[in-house]
Amino acid sequence: VSASSELDNLRVVLVNTRNPLNIGAVARAMSNFGCFHLRVVNPYEEAWREARSAVGGAPLLADAEEFSSIADAVADCSLVIGTTAARDRELNHHVRTPREAEPLIRERLHSERIALLFGSEKRGLSNEDLSHCHWLLRIPTRAEHGSMNLGQAVAVCLYEFVREIRTTPDVSVETQQPPASASELERITAVLLEALTESGYSDGASVAATEEKVRRLVRRLSISHEDADLVVGMLRKVLWKLRHP
Amino acid sequence: VSASSELDNLRVVLVNTRNPLNIGAVARAMSNFGCFHLRVVNPYEEAWREARSAVGGAPLLADAEEFSSIADAVADCSLVIGTTAARDRELNHHVRTPREAEPLIRERLHSERIALLFGSEKRGLSNEDLSHCHWLLRIPTRAEHGSMNLGQAVAVCLYEFVREIRTTPDVSVETQQPPASASELERITAVLLEALTESGYSDGASVAATEEKVRRLVRRLSISHEDADLVVGMLRKVLWKLRHP
Repeated sequence: VSASSELDNLRVVLVNTRNPLNIGAVARAMSNFGCFHLRVVNPYEEAWREARSAVGGAPLLADAEEFSSIADAVADCSLVIGTTAARDRELNHHVRTPREAEPLIRERLHSERIALLFGSEKRGLSNEDLSHCHWLLRIPTRAEHGSMNLGQAVAVCLYEFVREIRTTPDVSVETQQPPASASELERITAVLLEALTESGYSDGASVAATEEKVRRLVRRLSISHEDADLVVGMLRKVLWKLRHP
Repeated sequence: VSASSELDNLRVVLVNTRNPLNIGAVARAMSNFGCFHLRVVNPYEEAWREARSAVGGAPLLADAEEFSSIADAVADCSLVIGTTAARDRELNHHVRTPREAEPLIRERLHSERIALLFGSEKRGLSNEDLSHCHWLLRIPTRAEHGSMNLGQAVAVCLYEFVREIRTTPDVSVETQQPPASASELERITAVLLEALTESGYSDGASVAATEEKVRRLVRRLSISHEDADLVVGMLRKVLWKLRHP
């Protein structure tokens, strides 16, 4: 299941946003994570105009829907979630962290339209705004500095919603190097030990003690299969030079 | 264990950052998540000056350390992680998602200093920059639009590092309302059923069928203990009015 189809039923709703740069930053985060449906409620007119006309403005800004009330903006959603930075004010809602919310949201996104509300930069969502919400989401920021930048808050929420499904990107599989085999490590150990012996490194210590030390070291290095030949080649070159000064 | 002490050994390293707003946004995200040690490598002088003098500039900008090379900036770190948006270029490193990286990073943060590198807005980290890194972190964005806003990328990474330890904020415990008891739900069921009967709602259907329907409905509503009295009070009022028109 692709993440974009997973987030197809999600509506990001910005309420009373003031700063055009923030609207643009939200659109970018949404595009990054494959969430394409933006709704705005009473944006400051100038901010909204500027954001939509910005160079590189995402297509999703052009497709964004504008509403004059939260009720209208969430009318077709069966789950409405408000975001809040508040820890201390009296809250009449369940408050969940994104991590706690994610399984609930992801399951319901299969069949239901869900609205995720973000308030204005200065005041967040008002109590009246929150009365439209079934429950609240709170990103676990510090008590001393809880209020996040709007675009960052959107990015963190959307990241949480895709992190489970997108946890193993193809690139990881491609670049994951298989580790060196035991015999490869032993070849490295042998040639390194020879080089060290040749260098007089083990003088004073017993041969067995040095060998063990080198063997342990080589195992701690997590050398890949591909790098094993490289390492052996380098050490052989060193050893040759030690023997032919 | 508090999150801020968890992130005490983390160094966020910005390489060749151009935009003062981005530096400010990074500082804000770091403060939100309790990560206080910022390092900058060759920031554009003007951007760096502007960012530090911005109104409300976080104290952590004042304490930030400036370096002229990555080597110097990470010299005291035993694990250096680069961030990348690239999926397709030839990568010589392990690439992990934040989710995959988090347990590794968190464990080592107990005893080791770790550097997390972010490249310039335009080009990210160069291959030379990446050669200083033990492995890479890639936020699972869409292939078609992988490159994130700098502040948002920092926010997502730091969020991942604290989400496990801060998953149950105190506010959640405080506001979690205990649910209504079965007897309370049954009282609600009874008075609602009376009101419906009084209203002629169940005409045609059997009493038993309507009662079951109402009982099921009331259980689906997840009514809290505190709200149960309120609901009963409302319904009683309605019922009284139905009986005394």
